[in-house]
Amino acid sequence: MHDTAPTSTTVAASPSRVARFNGFQEPSELDEATRRQIERRAQILAPTYQLFYRRPLDLASGSGAYLYDVHGTEYLDMYNNIPAVGHCNARVAAAVHAQMLQLNTHTRYLYPSILDYGERLLSTMPAPVDRVVFSNSGSESNDLAVRVAQKHTAAMGIVVTENAYHGSTAVGAAISPVTRAGAPSAEFPWVRTVPAPDPYREGENAAARFAADVGAAIRQLQEDGTGFAGFVADMVLSTDGVVTHPTGLFAPVLELVHAAGGVFVADEVQSGFGRLGEGLWGFARHGIRPDIVTMGKPMGNGFPVSALAGSREVLDTFGREVTYFSTFGGSPVAMAAASAVLDEIEERGLVAHAASMGARLLDGMNELRHLDPAIGDVRGSGLFTAVEYVLDQDTKEPDPRRALEVVARMRDLGVLISNTGLHNNSLKVRPPLVIDESGVDRYLEVFERICRERS
Amino acid sequence: MHDTAPTSTTVAASPSRVARFNGFQEPSELDEATRRQIERRAQILAPTYQLFYRRPLDLASGSGAYLYDVHGTEYLDMYNNIPAVGHCNARVAAAVHAQMLQLNTHTRYLYPSILDYGERLLSTMPAPVDRVVFSNSGSESNDLAVRVAQKHTAAMGIVVTENAYHGSTAVGAAISPVTRAGAPSAEFPWVRTVPAPDPYREGENAAARFAADVGAAIRQLQEDGTGFAGFVADMVLSTDGVVTHPTGLFAPVLELVHAAGGVFVADEVQSGFGRLGEGLWGFARHGIRPDIVTMGKPMGNGFPVSALAGSREVLDTFGREVTYFSTFGGSPVAMAAASAVLDEIEERGLVAHAASMGARLLDGMNELRHLDPAIGDVRGSGLFTAVEYVLDQDTKEPDPRRALEVVARMRDLGVLISNTGLHNNSLKVRPPLVIDESGVDRYLEVFERICRERS
Repeated sequence: MHDTAPTSTTVAASPSRVARFNGFQEPSELDEATRRQIERRAQILAPTYQLFYRRPLDLASGSGAYLYDVHGTEYLDMYNNIPAVGHCNARVAAAVHAQMLQLNTHTRYLYPSILDYGERLLSTMPAPVDRVVFSNSGSESNDLAVRVAQKHTAAMGIVVTENAYHGSTAVGAAISPVTRAGAPSAEFPWVRTVPAPDPYREGENAAARFAADVGAAIRQLQEDGTGFAGFVADMVLSTDGVVTHPTGLFAPVLELVHAAGGVFVADEVQSGFGRLGEGLWGFARHGIRPDIVTMGKPMGNGFPVSALAGSREVLDTFGREVTYFSTFGGSPVAMAAASAVLDEIEERGLVAHAASMGARLLDGMNELRHLDPAIGDVRGSGLFTAVEYVLDQDTKEPDPRRALEVVARMRDLGVLISNTGLHNNSLKVRPPLVIDESGVDRYLEVFERICRERS
Repeated sequence: MHDTAPTSTTVAASPSRVARFNGFQEPSELDEATRRQIERRAQILAPTYQLFYRRPLDLASGSGAYLYDVHGTEYLDMYNNIPAVGHCNARVAAAVHAQMLQLNTHTRYLYPSILDYGERLLSTMPAPVDRVVFSNSGSESNDLAVRVAQKHTAAMGIVVTENAYHGSTAVGAAISPVTRAGAPSAEFPWVRTVPAPDPYREGENAAARFAADVGAAIRQLQEDGTGFAGFVADMVLSTDGVVTHPTGLFAPVLELVHAAGGVFVADEVQSGFGRLGEGLWGFARHGIRPDIVTMGKPMGNGFPVSALAGSREVLDTFGREVTYFSTFGGSPVAMAAASAVLDEIEERGLVAHAASMGARLLDGMNELRHLDPAIGDVRGSGLFTAVEYVLDQDTKEPDPRRALEVVARMRDLGVLISNTGLHNNSLKVRPPLVIDESGVDRYLEVFERICRERS
């Protein structure tokens, strides 16, 4: 979803940017209707918009783990994590519709659903997390997390991984080097980046090296007068390449963060709500208790809703000094959507389902990996999996070209995925949680076919 | 909705803050259910949340311009601008429901509704505005406007009014002195504030004084090396006290902004979509053509959707250098909600309706103003009106106590409004656009009763 990133907040335009993104580039081999729609986009939408695939999809409908284009072609969706309980989930749609006809307002009036949902959400969190703030997007919740951490510590410095993505607000982008938005660096001089752990290359040393780098970044912030406010990390390090193992990676970091008086923010926007197949949250897999947890994307299955859960202590200064109000955040309709999603996850046992489908997916890919000499690593947890391509099994030099080729080939064979990572050389395979055996097997058949084309 | 604000970005906590906010403060005179729910809020929600009214409302349902509490009590809603086409509008709910069952995805696939809506929205904008970016909240769109302006100008400085509100992200709050979030000032040293025009006190001099102050702020930013990126203003200056007349206020400012190479951002989050009863946009009343227009709140009638419309030229650098992606922004469901809202506004003639209902409201209040010696000014455009209270008609010293008293008394008599302004001494009277004569007359009866209680 994102291109390569700089290793510091000083950003220079890169000529290779477009080439590594799974993006539409030129209107070749397109039918007339698609070409016309792409031209309309250029006339109406700002130049910030990008399309997936060499041949973009013109979608008409969705259902469960499947999307359908205007020609009636079916696509197995192995990419989208937002419709976690299924494209066009009828229960979520009905809950939203019923609530829109009953009451929709904001949090300066009383209504119980925000409390019922808030209580339910907090019951899934370990101490010290015991309070919640609702917003409309993971971006808004991560932006708020930075503000809360900075207020709590009366310091500015934030440490993130070098290809992190945490959102699209100004401050969200500042802590998202993958967006290249750190520039001008004078704007947000308080952001420091460290290379994410890369267990595939670093082996057992990954966790220790990562912690050492975080420690050095913290010391640097303390010494240069910026001060250290907090550490923010995606609990599956998605844009850094999807790092699911070993677990425990963040435990030493959390210790360093707390020893320095900082706030540990676990970004669960991508990893949360059961996707990893072990409980609802990614941080728990790493055996840590964060100070702040942010979430979004699948929370409302496509209805815009997000949350920041944090400890009373960390939220205290911000709560006293700043007026924060989100017009739509935590509205009765947002709570109806989010509650229906949790109902679906619980009643359909989707966390355990993600674990079993994820195991089937991972086992299947591991059995097939020998067919393609460019496959360097296959990894995953639950339904967040990745396949990393390399030019050489020994040097492990990244092969983004092969990854992009596989993404494009899959699209032509009716399966949607994308690529990710610092070097954009990993497949991101991350279907709606409701995918069943037949969906996984269909993916594996296509994966096998593409592997065999190479071997 | 907001408390008093500092006149610079260096903020100190003010002991008078709570007293001036129309907020719940202590659990007196409350029924057991309300008290219990307030206690639950304190246990579950972060301390950032505030309730309206000395006796908060426990809401159960809404319809048109009316809200109903759990006891079945009806409240005439003269406050909420989000449900512009009516609380629980069936057409919007049906459009959202139908689309949720058909397709909901993001902008990296093709679907025509984002283009159809975008085209429709842009057809209401004058040149040079010709491109659109969708997000989820006015906060996100204003945050993006700042980023776009800074990229376009390669400068940082933003000028806003001294009690402005433009959003709840870190940067949104930085340009929203009313939230007291400018602190620590080291964080956003590039924000400058100027007193908003106050025609009630400044008379014909307001526009010239305002322009002169903006000009001085621009020069200061240029001279101190910050550079000038842009000017951002709410086109009805809501939190500065609701400034609807004279029109033309922003024309000299726009000239200064352009002469300095800056970007003029018209924030239509509160003023847009016909509320002012003259076309869809507040900037048009002032005879200006802004470079960027932001909008939100009523755009989806409570469904989270927002937009930034801007000129190709201004969006160009940002589009080339930064990856911007909003997960939910511009989704098929968001577009369905926004389209249904525009359908309602157009087919029911709600702009003209806002003009006629607003005239009825304003005329009625003007006829009654002599009954309360504390009323210093009555002003408005369409269905955005204000009543300003003063201690003395000659000195025009603000009387926030009387404003708060009227707000509380109205609530007890079944009418919902709030207070606003730099001194919090103005009523903010701003009902859903669908209010009819009987609603306006009911408000005027209550307003008369409260005026007479004083006289």
